[in-house]
Amino acid sequence: MCTVCHGQYGIAVAPNTPNLAGENAVYIAEQLKAFKSGKRTHEQMSIIAADLKDEDIKDLAEWFSLISVVATPPDLD
Amino acid sequence: MCTVCHGQYGIAVAPNTPNLAGENAVYIAEQLKAFKSGKRTHEQMSIIAADLKDEDIKDLAEWFSLISVVATPPDLD
Repeated sequence: MCTVCHGQYGIAVAPNTPNLAGENAVYIAEQLKAFKSGKRTHEQMSIIAADLKDEDIKDLAEWFSLISVVATPPDLD
Repeated sequence: MCTVCHGQYGIAVAPNTPNLAGENAVYIAEQLKAFKSGKRTHEQMSIIAADLKDEDIKDLAEWFSLISVVATPPDLD
């Protein structure tokens, strides 16, 4: 379900959507819990997170955190 | 200032911190505005975003969005 917007390997494919690839697991879990509790709100994520169990949140956070990412800055010359 | 936690090229160096490398510019700008307005809250980011001008937000969003990222999934075999 996540991949529709966040991409198969966590590089976002939808506009206005964050990459999740290599994201810190604690951060992902905390944001999912914030969407679930209502502390953070988003049209889609608030609905999606509402149905996630603690175990789902742990699994999702771990999966995305395990993707390795390499960043290359733009050549501005 | 961002790089202390989010890393020089947007790969987070602090725990519980999102990567910003290659992040969608609209998403970054929206989150900074949400921290500034109080819609989204975070101990550090709420303070930092409060002082950002619209032009700063635009520049920061553009810079991080221009970093290219390559994601490689974990080898689970």
